[in-house]
Amino acid sequence: MAKVNVGRKILSANETYARKNSELLAQHGSRCFNMISSPGSGKTTLLVRTIRDLAGAVKIGVIEGDIQTDIDAQRIRATNAPAIQIITEGACHLSATQVHQALQELSLDNLEIVFIENVGNLVCPSSFELGEDGKIVVLSVAEGDDKPAKYPAIFAKSKVLLVNKIDLLAAGALVDFDLERVKADARRLNKGIEIFPVSARTGEGMGAWYDWLKGRLAKS
Amino acid sequence: MAKVNVGRKILSANETYARKNSELLAQHGSRCFNMISSPGSGKTTLLVRTIRDLAGAVKIGVIEGDIQTDIDAQRIRATNAPAIQIITEGACHLSATQVHQALQELSLDNLEIVFIENVGNLVCPSSFELGEDGKIVVLSVAEGDDKPAKYPAIFAKSKVLLVNKIDLLAAGALVDFDLERVKADARRLNKGIEIFPVSARTGEGMGAWYDWLKGRLAKS
Repeated sequence: MAKVNVGRKILSANETYARKNSELLAQHGSRCFNMISSPGSGKTTLLVRTIRDLAGAVKIGVIEGDIQTDIDAQRIRATNAPAIQIITEGACHLSATQVHQALQELSLDNLEIVFIENVGNLVCPSSFELGEDGKIVVLSVAEGDDKPAKYPAIFAKSKVLLVNKIDLLAAGALVDFDLERVKADARRLNKGIEIFPVSARTGEGMGAWYDWLKGRLAKS
Repeated sequence: MAKVNVGRKILSANETYARKNSELLAQHGSRCFNMISSPGSGKTTLLVRTIRDLAGAVKIGVIEGDIQTDIDAQRIRATNAPAIQIITEGACHLSATQVHQALQELSLDNLEIVFIENVGNLVCPSSFELGEDGKIVVLSVAEGDDKPAKYPAIFAKSKVLLVNKIDLLAAGALVDFDLERVKADARRLNKGIEIFPVSARTGEGMGAWYDWLKGRLAKS
């Protein structure tokens, strides 16, 4: 049998849909960020505060990924932002195919930014491109300062690291979290990563994150 | 072609090794618990305190699973307990095959309890039996009280739920964690689950956990 060299990479179904998503978002001038973290790092709380604080300035929609329940989509909708819930029923990450379907249900013409809140998992979601403009990794200070060293892939691939719940440091409740270690370990993996220490609860540090987001908007 | 009914379940490689592990542990009278949680819930800190507080009373060894680094095994060895580090290099859970190899390296005759600290991931490790006597799920109060509802599988399968970092509640740093909701949601999934609120940092509540562990030891 003759050997056929097709001369290009055969795309997986996920890669095919990731490209479609990227094209669809670009057609509408919408930016898309894929938020990845451990369960309970505060992704939804961060999104709720970001949407409220940028109301009137930036039009935001959200795709929520959860194994069970639509608790998170309900929290987003309480801000009046549109939210589509994907329930994975056990799957440990979102796929580009699932996101493609959700993107059809959002009115992209009205959205400058689409956030995808992935399933809470610091490992698996980092391996699946969804067609996003960038990954945002969230790390709560309560998780400890050894996480970039122990879970390097997502820190290596993200455009932004949000170090959340810094109000716990100020409260003196956590004394063994070394922010400088986190920054150094993350930059060793990814020298271009932007790092914003924030508290979605108190609002501390959120301004720098908002400035970064506004700088990503498509020029109109 | 004749249809062959083998009349028994074909075991996967993981199931085969899980059985071997279970048999090996039983031969030595060692109990084995598989600890599963999100990254940063405090599994290693819990183990370090448990080993120190039970020194002289219960002989404990640990198998550590991490994607990268042997930070956790080093922390366990500082207590003088034996620890074998498995580095999964990206894999999101431990397999029974990996655990089988690690069990060969431990002196099981000298161990009453072997803890397996799985990769930090609240999703994938729940699907892989390792030959353990039971799973222990750890939830830090900093992760929020919606986790049993959102990640039900591991709460449904565990013998024990350790609700860790309760010192953060006492410090007033976290005001929105409802322990009763966690208990109710976990028991809805698993009516026999034992729930111990603890602080591995301060030692609060650890006594009940130790009593449970001692009750699991093989009669000598």
